[in-house]
Amino acid sequence: MTTARQVIKCKAAVAWEPGRALVIEEVEVAPPKAHEVRIKIVATGVCHTDWEYLYETHKGMKSRPFPLVLGHEAAGIVESVGPDVTTFSPGDKVIPLFLPYCGECERCQSPKTNHCRKNWENAQVGVLADGTSRISCKGQQVYQFLGVSSFSQYTVVPDTSLAKIRADALLDKVCLLGCGVSTGYGAAVKAAKVEKDSSCAVFGLGAVGLAAIMGCKVAMAKTIIGIDINPEKFEKAKLFGATDCINPRDFSKPIQEVVVEKTNGGVDYALECVGSPVIMSAALESTTDAWGMCVIAGWTETESISVLVEKLLMGRTLKGTYFGGWKSVLDVPKLVDDYMDNKLKLDEFITHTRQLNQINEAFDLLKNGKSIRTVIYLRGPQETDGPSYAT
Amino acid sequence: MTTARQVIKCKAAVAWEPGRALVIEEVEVAPPKAHEVRIKIVATGVCHTDWEYLYETHKGMKSRPFPLVLGHEAAGIVESVGPDVTTFSPGDKVIPLFLPYCGECERCQSPKTNHCRKNWENAQVGVLADGTSRISCKGQQVYQFLGVSSFSQYTVVPDTSLAKIRADALLDKVCLLGCGVSTGYGAAVKAAKVEKDSSCAVFGLGAVGLAAIMGCKVAMAKTIIGIDINPEKFEKAKLFGATDCINPRDFSKPIQEVVVEKTNGGVDYALECVGSPVIMSAALESTTDAWGMCVIAGWTETESISVLVEKLLMGRTLKGTYFGGWKSVLDVPKLVDDYMDNKLKLDEFITHTRQLNQINEAFDLLKNGKSIRTVIYLRGPQETDGPSYAT
Repeated sequence: MTTARQVIKCKAAVAWEPGRALVIEEVEVAPPKAHEVRIKIVATGVCHTDWEYLYETHKGMKSRPFPLVLGHEAAGIVESVGPDVTTFSPGDKVIPLFLPYCGECERCQSPKTNHCRKNWENAQVGVLADGTSRISCKGQQVYQFLGVSSFSQYTVVPDTSLAKIRADALLDKVCLLGCGVSTGYGAAVKAAKVEKDSSCAVFGLGAVGLAAIMGCKVAMAKTIIGIDINPEKFEKAKLFGATDCINPRDFSKPIQEVVVEKTNGGVDYALECVGSPVIMSAALESTTDAWGMCVIAGWTETESISVLVEKLLMGRTLKGTYFGGWKSVLDVPKLVDDYMDNKLKLDEFITHTRQLNQINEAFDLLKNGKSIRTVIYLRGPQETDGPSYAT
Repeated sequence: MTTARQVIKCKAAVAWEPGRALVIEEVEVAPPKAHEVRIKIVATGVCHTDWEYLYETHKGMKSRPFPLVLGHEAAGIVESVGPDVTTFSPGDKVIPLFLPYCGECERCQSPKTNHCRKNWENAQVGVLADGTSRISCKGQQVYQFLGVSSFSQYTVVPDTSLAKIRADALLDKVCLLGCGVSTGYGAAVKAAKVEKDSSCAVFGLGAVGLAAIMGCKVAMAKTIIGIDINPEKFEKAKLFGATDCINPRDFSKPIQEVVVEKTNGGVDYALECVGSPVIMSAALESTTDAWGMCVIAGWTETESISVLVEKLLMGRTLKGTYFGGWKSVLDVPKLVDDYMDNKLKLDEFITHTRQLNQINEAFDLLKNGKSIRTVIYLRGPQETDGPSYAT
């Protein structure tokens, strides 16, 4: 019996209000409208950004409307498609995307950016193109975080915010390409364009930072310094390619001075993967005169950083990156290929797996620095899509 | 009778202490040591930086040792060369450079930078390679500003800080390529790499800003907005290629909002040519999401700017430039060629000419926004090098 054109009742983790734990609820997911696709979410990563929008709305984040279904780093299977959808069919494996790629606008046509703005304003306030969400709970509209909402067994996304991936993709691994890993990896290889034999410093060794290290390694950097105040992350950093690890707390002087001394003048590339203004300034100041490049991959929406002008005048460049510079719909399938071809690590990011009803535990692990990524399975083993996500 | 190997007595404008007008003195200029060249300065521009180091040492500038001979934007003729100088001979027309190019270091070999550091630390404190200056007055060492000191009839510079230019170059025009014009022009064409049909905003319409406008025009930008609080600069800005001019004082909202509205989202390139932290932040915020590029060409040594992180994350790049990104010794002769071939304007920057003993007048003109560039002739008409600088 098809579920197409029906409202689907399923489980979702609802964020009723800022600062309060998620609640597993039965939600109703409406059928997709024109140019929309309804997806059965199979697995979702839990990203620091999800946690921040729930627990740190006052710290550098714009507030989002509640109630909200969080989650934006996922993989799933197309359940049904709305009118005018031509590129997806039920059964397709997909990764929903918080960054669209319409393929038609000036930005999508330009090699200089990945910042497509299709449905952008709506996605920022939790709704789809018609100004409403497709998720409701107890008769109340529930907003879709960044237009995605993967902490739900089903969700609906625009067809310009969805990447079709190969049929043999392991959904509980490639879900990580929906945000953190792509962001960090792209920060190194696409935004910074790390060069062979260069020196790099990566600030913050969460998933984004480890992925940045992986990018530096793939780009054949000679020196890759991983920096974190949690030395438990160092072993993993070395696994991904760090040649050195530094804990700023081991030094009385500022970390930028430590890096500059260690590298005899500063690194060629600094990648900020924390989202802290103070660390962003330190990252810039860790780079060398003449051609130092600092790329910010960490996220903060409302804060400012202080930049010593002379650092720029002496040849440094400061830039930001969003989703690692990848053109989402176009590039994510290629990253999936790279993983399936063993060119990209994903399994190593996954330190924990949990079921949907354990999702608050995943937040605790994250907050306490115990996990890199926890992958949440959205349904029980009896409903699996093969062994890849039946753990 | 040759002056080589002799101490030369000549006139120079000496800055005895910060905040006090220059004094024309008889100075002694020692013969060049190894890898040094003594030059007869024919003409020098008066740059805002000269004025700042004298009158605004407390405002964003590191203090320099006094007494000092200022001046760093000049052209002249080689009088004699020291031992081991192989690429210059007496009679060569030259432009002394505050930025060296040794041609041998990693930086000179790299296409990514022009920041050669040969003799750098010494030049910053006003001395040559052996730790002393070649200029003295009344038995006292007089420091050489940035290793140049062109407010003197003679000076001595390292052979790695000197560009040999064509014999028919007009010295009282091409002197401007020693600093301001090269800086602004390069900020547009080399640092920002302004593209055809793009939109640009140039903040500050002094010599650097007007040269930036010229660069945008040469790069075939479609929209070139000149911005200054002195509307008397607008006519000249349009001569150099500005398509629009804006006086921030005509608006109650911040200038970045004015630019963003006018350009329907922000300019592709913003060039800061003032040296003011507040204007630097405004310039960055005047650029468009996705690929906005802000290049800082204005000078400040000690100040910081505030940067809204989200502006970077949404795709903007912030960088600085020093001497417009030009590899000094290599590129300045090409810029001279461009001027002599009518590809580059220089005459239009020169609003006033004065003799050395009128140099404080040139500072007054500059400070009061009455001049773009005043060119100072270092010797009387009877000693000219042909009609080009005999005005």
